[in-house]
Amino acid sequence: MCGIVGYIGSKQAQGILLEGLSKLEYRGYDSAGLAVYNGETIGVNKSKGRLTNLQDKLKVRSLPGQLGIGHTRWATHGKPSDENSHPHVDHAGRFAIVHNGIIENYIELKEELIAKGYQFTSETDTEVVAKLLSELWNGDLVSTVQKTVARLEGAYALGIVSEYEPDKLVAVRYASPLVVGIGKGENFIASDIPAILKHTRDVYILEDGEMAILKADEVTLMKVDGSLVDRESLRVNWDIATAEKGGYDHFMLKEIHEQPKAIRDTLAGRIKDGLVDLSQEVSLSGDEIRGIEKIHFVACGTAYHAGLVGKYVLEDLARIPVECDVASEYRYRNPIITERTLVVVVSQSGETADTLAALREAKKHGARVIAITNVVGSSVAREADDVIITWAGPEIAVASTKAYTSQLIAIYLLGTYFAQACGHKAEAELREIVSHLQNLAEKAEEVLKGEPAVEQFARSIAKHQNLFFLGRGLDFAVALEGSLKLKEISYIHSEAYAAGELKHGTLALIEEDIPVISLATQQAVYDKMVSNIQEVKARGANVLGLAVEGDTELNKSVDEVIHIPATIDLLSPVLAVIPLQLLAYYACVERGYDVDKPRNLAKSVTVE
Amino acid sequence: MCGIVGYIGSKQAQGILLEGLSKLEYRGYDSAGLAVYNGETIGVNKSKGRLTNLQDKLKVRSLPGQLGIGHTRWATHGKPSDENSHPHVDHAGRFAIVHNGIIENYIELKEELIAKGYQFTSETDTEVVAKLLSELWNGDLVSTVQKTVARLEGAYALGIVSEYEPDKLVAVRYASPLVVGIGKGENFIASDIPAILKHTRDVYILEDGEMAILKADEVTLMKVDGSLVDRESLRVNWDIATAEKGGYDHFMLKEIHEQPKAIRDTLAGRIKDGLVDLSQEVSLSGDEIRGIEKIHFVACGTAYHAGLVGKYVLEDLARIPVECDVASEYRYRNPIITERTLVVVVSQSGETADTLAALREAKKHGARVIAITNVVGSSVAREADDVIITWAGPEIAVASTKAYTSQLIAIYLLGTYFAQACGHKAEAELREIVSHLQNLAEKAEEVLKGEPAVEQFARSIAKHQNLFFLGRGLDFAVALEGSLKLKEISYIHSEAYAAGELKHGTLALIEEDIPVISLATQQAVYDKMVSNIQEVKARGANVLGLAVEGDTELNKSVDEVIHIPATIDLLSPVLAVIPLQLLAYYACVERGYDVDKPRNLAKSVTVE
Repeated sequence: MCGIVGYIGSKQAQGILLEGLSKLEYRGYDSAGLAVYNGETIGVNKSKGRLTNLQDKLKVRSLPGQLGIGHTRWATHGKPSDENSHPHVDHAGRFAIVHNGIIENYIELKEELIAKGYQFTSETDTEVVAKLLSELWNGDLVSTVQKTVARLEGAYALGIVSEYEPDKLVAVRYASPLVVGIGKGENFIASDIPAILKHTRDVYILEDGEMAILKADEVTLMKVDGSLVDRESLRVNWDIATAEKGGYDHFMLKEIHEQPKAIRDTLAGRIKDGLVDLSQEVSLSGDEIRGIEKIHFVACGTAYHAGLVGKYVLEDLARIPVECDVASEYRYRNPIITERTLVVVVSQSGETADTLAALREAKKHGARVIAITNVVGSSVAREADDVIITWAGPEIAVASTKAYTSQLIAIYLLGTYFAQACGHKAEAELREIVSHLQNLAEKAEEVLKGEPAVEQFARSIAKHQNLFFLGRGLDFAVALEGSLKLKEISYIHSEAYAAGELKHGTLALIEEDIPVISLATQQAVYDKMVSNIQEVKARGANVLGLAVEGDTELNKSVDEVIHIPATIDLLSPVLAVIPLQLLAYYACVERGYDVDKPRNLAKSVTVE
Repeated sequence: MCGIVGYIGSKQAQGILLEGLSKLEYRGYDSAGLAVYNGETIGVNKSKGRLTNLQDKLKVRSLPGQLGIGHTRWATHGKPSDENSHPHVDHAGRFAIVHNGIIENYIELKEELIAKGYQFTSETDTEVVAKLLSELWNGDLVSTVQKTVARLEGAYALGIVSEYEPDKLVAVRYASPLVVGIGKGENFIASDIPAILKHTRDVYILEDGEMAILKADEVTLMKVDGSLVDRESLRVNWDIATAEKGGYDHFMLKEIHEQPKAIRDTLAGRIKDGLVDLSQEVSLSGDEIRGIEKIHFVACGTAYHAGLVGKYVLEDLARIPVECDVASEYRYRNPIITERTLVVVVSQSGETADTLAALREAKKHGARVIAITNVVGSSVAREADDVIITWAGPEIAVASTKAYTSQLIAIYLLGTYFAQACGHKAEAELREIVSHLQNLAEKAEEVLKGEPAVEQFARSIAKHQNLFFLGRGLDFAVALEGSLKLKEISYIHSEAYAAGELKHGTLALIEEDIPVISLATQQAVYDKMVSNIQEVKARGANVLGLAVEGDTELNKSVDEVIHIPATIDLLSPVLAVIPLQLLAYYACVERGYDVDKPRNLAKSVTVE
């Protein structure tokens, strides 16, 4: 996830582009850069880190000119660095481009271009597009862009300028968002509306396979095959704050709704021929995987809850013993680590202090470390032996949602990949799991349609100060995460219990009308779970059951039921957690607290 | 722990003895029995199980006579069975005895008597005393008893009758309680006052090394060396209900105070020459111990919290990887168990349904199973390969206290025993640990003296509906147990957190005046803990700190401090939990709930 902007008109582009980028920083803040045509050549200035770093550089060397593009980066291919920052240019500096998305066939293209003598200065997938433009240049910018994108696989929103035709800004979109802003004597492109809203409220939303040719006083839309597109512009009535949130009231709600995409993106390119291929990310050989004696999942907070799912998944699929530990405990308890221990650290930001310290502790004892993180080039990603990136994109809300589900996907991929090497499960069964994995995003969309029912239940629980979550097996792991969400933002004291443990003490707290959210998605322990639900019902609890589509039994034991689509037990956490995230969200809204910035908490905990 | 009674007078003994035993059932209910002299011989009737079983048997064959003794058993040596029930008699039936306590040198005595031709019909330690009386009989009952007890090591309260001198009932005490009740034309002995309170309120409390010779109208007290003891009788002003609780308001408080004794009893006989000897209990050879690949602690509720301590202890001392799991989860999650897995199940009652099922699951997969339980002959004890009994005596209050601390002691013994075999720790260090173990009971007595301060803090938190416990490492394990106690009986929603995890979500719940009980007894993570305390203080929490004697720092960061005596980090849970038990107790009293029988809960959870 990155943000791109572009300007063509009669004003100085630099300030407009910078201001636009500042509205897109929620899309990434690993680096930023501008390319501006100064009447003769294209000047480029870019910098690793936040936008302010670029601003400082521009104070020293500004970029005059009235045509330009800009980029704020969420690192995907290649660590955050000056070299890997956008814009990228071809060898002669004739073309400059900014890109949001992933070019999946970039390795193939890069090899082809290298063979032709091209030299690359960055590790990005994007640079190949700049070089390709140069290679395919035929004297006409629009047709050269068309020929170029015909060679690309993957997702892209591109902004392109060229010295050859400095009266134009060309934009193309496939599977990454792009809008065109229509001004008076000036026009704009951007990844998202807030970046241009100060200048115009009239926009075109590009669709997949469409391109826009912007001149100062004219915008032409066409398909990449050259056929013209006739579309009315839209008038934006939102304010900027709403627009940044994509029309949602809060980032958390937006991010909850981004989960189907996060699931798809995290799976993308990692399934080949119906099986998992992590060979690009995980450098362990089959023998090395089979030689792993034990796995330690180490993480904090929500990522720890993902690790709990990891324990089930890895033990079940690969039959390797797994221990899951809170990083702040792990690092101080002198854990038993050998060279045949694999430590999997999980951290959205990749900067969580305790997790990073645990990683270092593990490496010190000779363990192999795999990081699951959302941030390319983060400390955890840099220091681990291998990294599996979760392609959730920047997560702004403090309460993590899409990062968690993406971590689960990464864990399923890892578990299946190891299972393929270990051979405890028949290949047919693994293919079955992979096929269910591929259906998860669509099913997550299905779950999101149930939002109104969850909202209603959230209203009914919002007055309570205490409530409980119950589950068995994987449902317990999800219950812990659901409970944490509710605590974090609604300040309701909720607590999750392994349902069979309740009678060993905590059942004393169950009294008339207390809400108990009971997960019953695991078919293997379904009957036991129903018994536990009846125990709390008998004490007067107000029970919300979470069941699988087609379950007509649970509603006999509970007060309300919410259904999620059927999948295999192993994968149900991805779907089961979504109603719980929505429950926390709407309970918080009902109670009137700040959803995205809960009291006392920070997004990325870089202190111990 | 057992209960004994005795009667001499002009009434029929049977009914009086039975009624006395019914008041002592809290001391054990594995079996019961009577021996009554009928004018010619001593008749014995006894039965496994509750007192009602004996009553049924007596309806078929009653025991007429005016001199008799009775016993209700809490099995120690030998499973609960008819044969192992008291009273025990010598081979000719001339002597009958009842015994509360443990004869530590009974194996040696038994071998000596077997060599002389004596045959034994039970597995008990007690039977040797009956045979020894016969062997040492010199024509005078009192001097024969004196010669007999001179041979005994251990603890005993004995009631003795003999056909040779049927005008007497002889009682002796060493380290087990015994009272003499003074009637009119009748006299009584009993383990505890409630058993005789219906008949008299005038009693002598025997002291260690004293004996009483009861005739129908006379009681003589002397030391076992024959010197007379001149003591005034006491007048009991309690009611019976209070008396059963030993003067305490509730069984829970009584059991909290019994912990120093439970610690001593659980250690007794298991330390030899400054090291741990569990060879009587644990049949694993040194090679077998060294061959253990991993240990699974499996338990429910409070016993699970003991298992969490077990993880730290075994990993630290023996460097064997340990996983601790809730039994209701373990049994259903297809855990990875091999023949080199040792499963340690922990259960006070030995009848916990999920724990028993987990034990069976583990055995099915070829694991070796050690049970830590408080009940000899319980299902868990019978089905495990080896059993380490916690000598806490019967626990009546639903909220477990002395069983937990005894489980910890058993775990320390196991960990040290394994460490001796594994050789990762220097013997000197292990001896140091053992020496600290031996000081724990005395230090626990010291902790109990701090009761008034805890009571005061309990009053201040009783009005709250929510609070938190924090700790790191072993303090976290103890925090979980302290929190469970508070939930169980005071119905305050308390929750324990690994202190480093708080900022990953739950910190949002910390607001002005919310009580936070913070354990800071672990020197290795003390500074980190103080930082976490300051985080909650900064949000306005009312913090009770638990610190080690001599800590003059913590009071600068918290509102109140309670100190426990210094010991090594590893052992501090035994001391740290006591103030938390008292806190729960007094919070419950302050809130006016039923301490011993909390709502919704049962003592021994024999359903899933």
